[in-house]
Parts: sequence; structure tokens; C-alpha cells
Amino acid sequence: MVFLSVLTPVLAVILCLVIGFMLLKPREAASMSTGKPASKSENFRPWVDQDLQDDTEITAREDEVGDWMDSSEEDLPHVPYSQKRYSEEMMLQRSQDFYTLMNDRRSVRFISPDPVPREVINNVIRTAGTSPSGAHTEPWTFIVVSDPEMKHQIRLIVEEEEEVNYRHRMGEKWVHDLAKLRTNWIKEYLDVAPFLVLIFKQTHGILPNGKKKTHYYNEISVSISCGILLAALQNAGLVTVTTTPLNCGPQLRLLLRRPANEKLLMLLPVGYPASDATVPDLKRKPLDDIMVYI
Amino acid sequence: MVFLSVLTPVLAVILCLVIGFMLLKPREAASMSTGKPASKSENFRPWVDQDLQDDTEITAREDEVGDWMDSSEEDLPHVPYSQKRYSEEMMLQRSQDFYTLMNDRRSVRFISPDPVPREVINNVIRTAGTSPSGAHTEPWTFIVVSDPEMKHQIRLIVEEEEEVNYRHRMGEKWVHDLAKLRTNWIKEYLDVAPFLVLIFKQTHGILPNGKKKTHYYNEISVSISCGILLAALQNAGLVTVTTTPLNCGPQLRLLLRRPANEKLLMLLPVGYPASDATVPDLKRKPLDDIMVYI
Repeated sequence: MVFLSVLTPVLAVILCLVIGFMLLKPREAASMSTGKPASKSENFRPWVDQDLQDDTEITAREDEVGDWMDSSEEDLPHVPYSQKRYSEEMMLQRSQDFYTLMNDRRSVRFISPDPVPREVINNVIRTAGTSPSGAHTEPWTFIVVSDPEMKHQIRLIVEEEEEVNYRHRMGEKWVHDLAKLRTNWIKEYLDVAPFLVLIFKQTHGILPNGKKKTHYYNEISVSISCGILLAALQNAGLVTVTTTPLNCGPQLRLLLRRPANEKLLMLLPVGYPASDATVPDLKRKPLDDIMVYI
Repeated sequence: MVFLSVLTPVLAVILCLVIGFMLLKPREAASMSTGKPASKSENFRPWVDQDLQDDTEITAREDEVGDWMDSSEEDLPHVPYSQKRYSEEMMLQRSQDFYTLMNDRRSVRFISPDPVPREVINNVIRTAGTSPSGAHTEPWTFIVVSDPEMKHQIRLIVEEEEEVNYRHRMGEKWVHDLAKLRTNWIKEYLDVAPFLVLIFKQTHGILPNGKKKTHYYNEISVSISCGILLAALQNAGLVTVTTTPLNCGPQLRLLLRRPANEKLLMLLPVGYPASDATVPDLKRKPLDDIMVYI
């Protein structure tokens, strides 16, 4: 009895230690998975572009306001604005002609090596720069690459990542589906097109005092600017294919020596269509499927 | 001694319970804050548009591939593609003219009530529908509102939320800055403009078997489409102002009876500029500030 009563506190301490250890263990595991949301939890999406993902929701949507105008813009004096007013017949004709022109646009992966005048590209980029942007931050940088060696470096980076994406990240289903794909990780157009336009979004700016300046809605703004860029290319008789290279952003940013506040959003190879270019025979939705009138 | 040895196990059990309770408590707290990331942690951003936020990174970026083409598109037969090839002089002239036209575009908040032909709006929306989209999902719905009562309902919802945003969510700093703002939560143009175009992104589609179909890059796709829409409006001699109404998405979606897979991305009031319209006297960055040539 005396022996037992001496042993009891020892047993109690051991019991406490065991219980404590059991309770601590899952808590550590929980806090670890909280700290690293990209670990093998249900949120694990290895094929998601980590570079695009890491800022859009965090940087772009702080302090934002609805109408894309901030006080710095409003401090400016206002000036009268007028615009050429066309007759109704003229408006109809112009809107019809512009629709016809834009409806001829297609994503073309077969691009001619024929040279394109650089001044045309300058005008197209100038046009993209007329896009509206949140608080008039103009958060875009257009890198225009014509140097053959640089184009090839870009191709190597894009193809390597695309192959990794397809082979390893997409899983078995994707590898199977791949057999059907004529478009795979070989991107010949990155060498062949006379120009590659890489469009970076500036997730924030730097104020004169060195502090960060939030760029409201930077991804939406730069995407709108890309829409205007696509219209300008089509208007000039040039073609491109809209691509968002997965997980290449950081490597391409370093290759092109862009600062850390710039993230690659899109890569557009630009040129004339190849003489034997083909496109998938797809249709666009009719107006009634995309518009509701109230 | 016997009394003590009887008491020891009881004390040990109480000790174990106390330790266990102390260990359990913070773990529960930790798991609770994990489950609700929008609680008052450092991630708390009450002024962020919860409606836009809740899907972009989760739905839009699953399974996505880099070149916006999926197997369903590639299953289509290919057809030859050619495009009108202009002389270099003609390309230069066209690109210069289009730049001049787009550079005249400004965000205009003073819109004339003058009626606009509906067929022009149809053509403009048709043109927006020619935009490329991830895997050709065409994930956009354009709601065109001309009904005065519906426009007014929209205005009430937008103004109420904007006032809440300004007054409560923006904090003291914003309320102070507000004094400088000529643009506040009063949005007269929502009543006045002959058309309001509300652009919804479809975060996913529904397959014939009822399953969800992922819409890759839906926000980027719809934003590109908006860029083409802005170009089409400008080409027709119409004006708008790009707005992304904060936190109004769910209410406006219900008002307009849109399905749950559609999220409001933008609201564009459309019309001629008012005769006394003014715009801030802002400048755009020169080409050298937005383009790097390699």
C-alpha cells in the first residue's frame, strides 16, 4: 500500500505527460497547415499559377473604391469634354463595321516570320495605354521582344514549364487527354513571331517617399488594356494568340529584368498569320445567348 | 500518510483535467480562426468586395492551362485562316488613326439623357462577344437596362452600398479625404444614362449532366471583353465610365434575376456625353514609360 502510494504521483506525472503530448501533437499539425495553405490539404492546387495568385486578392483589392477615381485624380482641375457626334445612320454603320472587323479576329497559333514595322507596334502599344485603370494608376508594362536570342530564351522557359504542367501537375487524366491535343508544350511561334509582347501588371507602385502605392484593380485594368490591344492589333491586320504562361512569371520577370512589383499577366506573339495558318472551326454564341435586355 | 495516498490519485486526475483543458482551449481558438479567415485577424478587409473575392482565385484557376485552349476546342476540325494584309503604309495609317480615336476616350460621369439607337448597343455587345476567353467558354453575360424603374432600383442599391463603403468601411482617413471628392456616392448617371450595361462573369458553367464546368480565367476573359466593349463604344461616338460597384453584386444579381454562377464584374452607364460634361485634366504616360523594347 505504501509502495503504491509512492508510485501513484509518478504514474500521474507520466499520465499527464502522455495526455499533454497527445493534445499538443494535432495542434502543431493544425498550425503548420494554417501557416502553409499550399501544403497537401484540400486547397492544394499545384497547377495554379502561383505567381499570379500571390497578389491579386491581397494587393489589388485593398482600400479600393467603386468608381476607379481617387482623390489625387479629383484634385486635378476639370476641363470640358466633347466628342464627335455621329448621325444615327453613321453610328449604326460604324458599329456594324467595327463588329465585322473584330468578328474576323481569331486566336492564331501559326504566325508568319515576315517582319512587321516597329512603328505599327508602337502605335498598338500606345493604344493599349489609353485604357482606363483603377484610380488612373496605368499599372501596365509592355515588354516588346524582337531579339531572336531573347525570344528563344523565353521559349525555353515557357516550354519547360508547360511540359511540367502537362506531364506532372495535370495528373493522369490530363496526360490521357493530352493525346488528343494538337496544341501541347511545343510553342514554335515563340521563335517565329517577329514580336513577342509580354504584358506585366504592376501590383503596386512606389511613392516618392519609398512607400507602396496600392494599385486598385490592377489585374482587371491590365486585362481591359489587353482587350484594347487585341482590337488595335486586329485593326492593323496583325494576329496573336492570348496566352497566360503558367508559373513562368518569376523566371520571365528575372530574364527580362523587371522589378518585383511587376507580375506577368499575358504573353502575346504578334505577326501576320502564316500562309498555311488554320484555326479550330468554332462558333461564337449568338447575341441572345450573351445579352439580356431589360 | 494513508489519507494523502488516497488523495493523490484524485489530485492527479484534477491536474490532468486542468492541463488538458488548458491545452485544448487555444487549439479550439486556432481552429476557429482557421475556419473563418474573414474574422478579425490581420486578413480582415471589410471594404473588399466579398462577392468578387469569393471565386476568382478558387474557381477560375483550377485545372487551367496556359494557352486558353482545351481539348473540346481541339476536337473541332481546323479550317484555313487568312486575313486582309494591308500595305505597310496602310498599317501605319490605320494604327495611327485607331490610336487617335482611342486616345480621345475618357471616363465620363456626365451623360446626356438623349436616346441612343438600340441596334447600336446590340452591335457593341456583339463586338464584346468576339473577345477570346479561356478554353472558349465565353463566360460573360451583358445585361442592358433601359427601363427607368429598373435603372432607379440599381441606383438605389449602388448608392446605398457606396455610402456605406465611404462612411463606415473606409475609416476616418477616407471620411476626411471625402471632403475633397467631387465624386461621392451620388450617382446621378445611373438614372440619366439611356442604357446601363451590367457585365457579369460566369464563374462556372453547368454541363448537360448537371456538373460544374470550370471557366478558366473567367475574370481576365471578361475584362478583356470589356476592353473590346469600351473600344466599340468609343468607335460609335458613345461614352461611359468604368465602375466596379463594391459589394453590390449579390443584390444586383438578385434584382436582375441572374443565376448564382454569375458575379457582377462591371457596371457601365452608356450614352452621349452631356453638353456640359467635364473630365479631370489628366495626362497619360508617354510610350517610353509603358513600353520596353528588347
